[in-house]
Amino acid sequence: MEFTVQQVAHILKGEVKGNHQVKVRNLAKIQEGKEGDICFLSNLKYESFLYSTSASAVIVNRDFEPKRAYQPTLILVDDAYTAFSVLLEEYVKVVNFSKSGIEQPSYIAQSTTYGEGLYLGAFAYIGNNVKIGENVKIYPHVYIGDNVSIGDNTILYSGVKVYAGCYIGSLCTIHAGAVIGSDGFGFAPQPDGTYKAIPQIGNVIIKDCVDIGANTTVDRAMMGSTIIESGVKLDNHIQIAHNVQIGKNTVIASHTGISGSTTIGENCIIAGQVGMVGHIHIANRTTIGAQTGITKGVDKEGSVLLGSPALEHKEQLKIFVLMKKLPEFKKRIEELEKSIKEMKTN
Amino acid sequence: MEFTVQQVAHILKGEVKGNHQVKVRNLAKIQEGKEGDICFLSNLKYESFLYSTSASAVIVNRDFEPKRAYQPTLILVDDAYTAFSVLLEEYVKVVNFSKSGIEQPSYIAQSTTYGEGLYLGAFAYIGNNVKIGENVKIYPHVYIGDNVSIGDNTILYSGVKVYAGCYIGSLCTIHAGAVIGSDGFGFAPQPDGTYKAIPQIGNVIIKDCVDIGANTTVDRAMMGSTIIESGVKLDNHIQIAHNVQIGKNTVIASHTGISGSTTIGENCIIAGQVGMVGHIHIANRTTIGAQTGITKGVDKEGSVLLGSPALEHKEQLKIFVLMKKLPEFKKRIEELEKSIKEMKTN
Amino acid sequence: MEFTVQQVAHILKGEVKGNHQVKVRNLAKIQEGKEGDICFLSNLKYESFLYSTSASAVIVNRDFEPKRAYQPTLILVDDAYTAFSVLLEEYVKVVNFSKSGIEQPSYIAQSTTYGEGLYLGAFAYIGNNVKIGENVKIYPHVYIGDNVSIGDNTILYSGVKVYAGCYIGSLCTIHAGAVIGSDGFGFAPQPDGTYKAIPQIGNVIIKDCVDIGANTTVDRAMMGSTIIESGVKLDNHIQIAHNVQIGKNTVIASHTGISGSTTIGENCIIAGQVGMVGHIHIANRTTIGAQTGITKGVDKEGSVLLGSPALEHKEQLKIFVLMKKLPEFKKRIEELEKSIKEMKTN
Repeated sequence: MEFTVQQVAHILKGEVKGNHQVKVRNLAKIQEGKEGDICFLSNLKYESFLYSTSASAVIVNRDFEPKRAYQPTLILVDDAYTAFSVLLEEYVKVVNFSKSGIEQPSYIAQSTTYGEGLYLGAFAYIGNNVKIGENVKIYPHVYIGDNVSIGDNTILYSGVKVYAGCYIGSLCTIHAGAVIGSDGFGFAPQPDGTYKAIPQIGNVIIKDCVDIGANTTVDRAMMGSTIIESGVKLDNHIQIAHNVQIGKNTVIASHTGISGSTTIGENCIIAGQVGMVGHIHIANRTTIGAQTGITKGVDKEGSVLLGSPALEHKEQLKIFVLMKKLPEFKKRIEELEKSIKEMKTN
Repeated sequence: MEFTVQQVAHILKGEVKGNHQVKVRNLAKIQEGKEGDICFLSNLKYESFLYSTSASAVIVNRDFEPKRAYQPTLILVDDAYTAFSVLLEEYVKVVNFSKSGIEQPSYIAQSTTYGEGLYLGAFAYIGNNVKIGENVKIYPHVYIGDNVSIGDNTILYSGVKVYAGCYIGSLCTIHAGAVIGSDGFGFAPQPDGTYKAIPQIGNVIIKDCVDIGANTTVDRAMMGSTIIESGVKLDNHIQIAHNVQIGKNTVIASHTGISGSTTIGENCIIAGQVGMVGHIHIANRTTIGAQTGITKGVDKEGSVLLGSPALEHKEQLKIFVLMKKLPEFKKRIEELEKSIKEMKTN
Repeated sequence: MEFTVQQVAHILKGEVKGNHQVKVRNLAKIQEGKEGDICFLSNLKYESFLYSTSASAVIVNRDFEPKRAYQPTLILVDDAYTAFSVLLEEYVKVVNFSKSGIEQPSYIAQSTTYGEGLYLGAFAYIGNNVKIGENVKIYPHVYIGDNVSIGDNTILYSGVKVYAGCYIGSLCTIHAGAVIGSDGFGFAPQPDGTYKAIPQIGNVIIKDCVDIGANTTVDRAMMGSTIIESGVKLDNHIQIAHNVQIGKNTVIASHTGISGSTTIGENCIIAGQVGMVGHIHIANRTTIGAQTGITKGVDKEGSVLLGSPALEHKEQLKIFVLMKKLPEFKKRIEELEKSIKEMKTN
């Protein structure tokens, strides 16, 4: 996409100083600005870059007074940082929702319905009796099983797989390679040492405004539903097991695994590579540090946990410090033993 | 799918009490039953739900005597729990094997053979000289490289990738996004600091009755085969490196990684986020707790290990308790030092 | 592929002893050799296999003197081990680059250019304005977004997803299910407890000779680029977050996660399941053990780290030993207390 500085200034209610017809295509940091880029200058720490950048346009505060000669066209606004943020958001909205239409070959089975503004990439597959809302963007190689429902303004990037019978809300973004609705890992041991799969006939329900990272997996429930509440943000490579429920606005970082039937409260923050046993509950607003191993439920809201096995965060930090002192403690014990021995023999 | 209660009762050798023609479509827990659902009541703890549920049918024990009025049609059987399990298994068999036929466009290269009952989803790709058994279900976007062999009654869900030359047995289930036969991670350091790939020309052999979770990866051997024996169950996001061998009926949970050339015995149970170094052997019936780091082989069958680095389970639990007491130990050492000092100065 | 022993001997500048017309199809270890295989015998520990193998050909040292009767045709060379390595490399080159041509149906959007020797598998998708070099191999189900650039002799295996605007160098190998350019995990907390996505408008730059494992993910930068320098080798299931930079010839094993904006030096060796916080720098030639948790930057080149939280390797090993002695330390403290008590009361 290409805009004139004049067009950008119009969106930002700003004033152009320089060539109104200069064209911009990308947003960039001022220290990395190239021809065709639009940047911003807010913190004067970066002022020197204005005089050296080859960016085509720079957004500056209205009261900014350049001290030297500069190349770019300026756009004067009340607050350059805020204006740039607005631009970023507009840009990403345009980019993410720019695709539309149905590319061929794609596959749509019977009884599927979809709203206006659909993008269906080539090689995307839609099963029977699927309901797709307005303005949904389905990239190439997405698989949507039978009886799936997808809300408005949701984006499924290339290679997302949604098994039959799952629900995905509105305003969700699901990244490439994520798998929604694979079988839960449930096997009953048999007398001869083999295992028999426990049928997994439930589904996955993903509410609105959920973001799911690349290659993350959410298993279907054994019966009932694995539920991801609205506003949840999942990073890449996360494992959500069968019958898990994750409360509103909880954020989970990469490589974390939540075992079966565990329920997590609202507004929790869970760092990367955390592991959680099954069948426990984590209270609202719990914060969990990276690589923590959660072996039992958390009752108190606002808890902060760290370590494997997990302890209260401050207690764990003290123990980490004391572990480093183990060689010293060993010496001190030896000294004490020596003293006692001397005292006894005297 | 839709059945009359009469049809279900026939399968279960049960007796219908109420409307024989009521139709059911789904199986559900009695506490979540909706119109069209069939549930069961075995544990009388849940009896009250019978009187409030809007489920269409409930399976109960023959000797059950309702105390109040209820809506659903009942199916009377000898053992309601067992009957429901039978129903679950029949249901999932029907669902999993319901697809058949070859959807278009799909791609089948030369010299490929396949048996009766094949389902080949649209956009599935089959390479040259592939052998596919009876009743195999290959979902959309599956990739099967040249010279692959797949046994009877195996299901490959959407997006599974099987590299050239690999073997997959009968009665296997491989979930979406799993990768079988990618190159092993082998690189020889060169004098100039770069690395040269060590050719990985082996394959992967997956025996019968193996389940593989979503996005799990099994690397091909450098030479020879990476081998997953029959009855092995792998959860999601697992990494099996080149030349690994996993013994019969071993179960491994999510995010666990097994390094190159390690061999694991039969009937082991390995929890999530476990890491294992390469070139070791793990004895049969070893149990390994979550987040454990295995740095050396396990000789004794039936061992139980925990922690990073791993210790015998009970020893590790004791150490976890003592770690929490480090602040107390520190104090006690200080007290002792104080006492000694006092005694010496007196 | 099938060669006569004569053809193989020609490549290796070797001498055939036996039937020149025997045909070989595979390379194998001598202890696993079957009809159609070519093996080597260098270490005489394996000599007995020569007399029992059903391999069709065996490469031996020129000075080797068989003691008993044997079946295979021999190829005599100066150094059997080196000759076999040469063969391995030739074999893998031929296998990896054997595919060429454009299979149908595949999808190429407008303004895309590509060089000689392209393989484009069926169901591969190429967006607008993509630049593809010479001899590139793009397997089925690969997705390449708009404005992507790919260098010469690069292989993208089945199901690789490259988001719009990313660059991939020459001589790279990217394995099945890897995702390049998914959004960075950046969300700004809002006063009402929800999170707002921070636009991720940067890209990913992958330089030359980079290998990326199956299902590994590399997120695009928020602005600017996530950069993987030349010669980097990434195993399976790795997470590289937004704005990370990884220096030349650094090797990272499976399940490791690098958080946002962290920069890693050259020639580092990072084992599996390592976690790293964001916004730190790791010095060149740092070695990090498996399951390590890196919570702060590493200044000193050639550092060796282990544990969670990480310590210098030798210090950590000492502490691991002392942790196992905690029960003993507890006893010794108790004994000391007892002694003191006795001494005081006397």
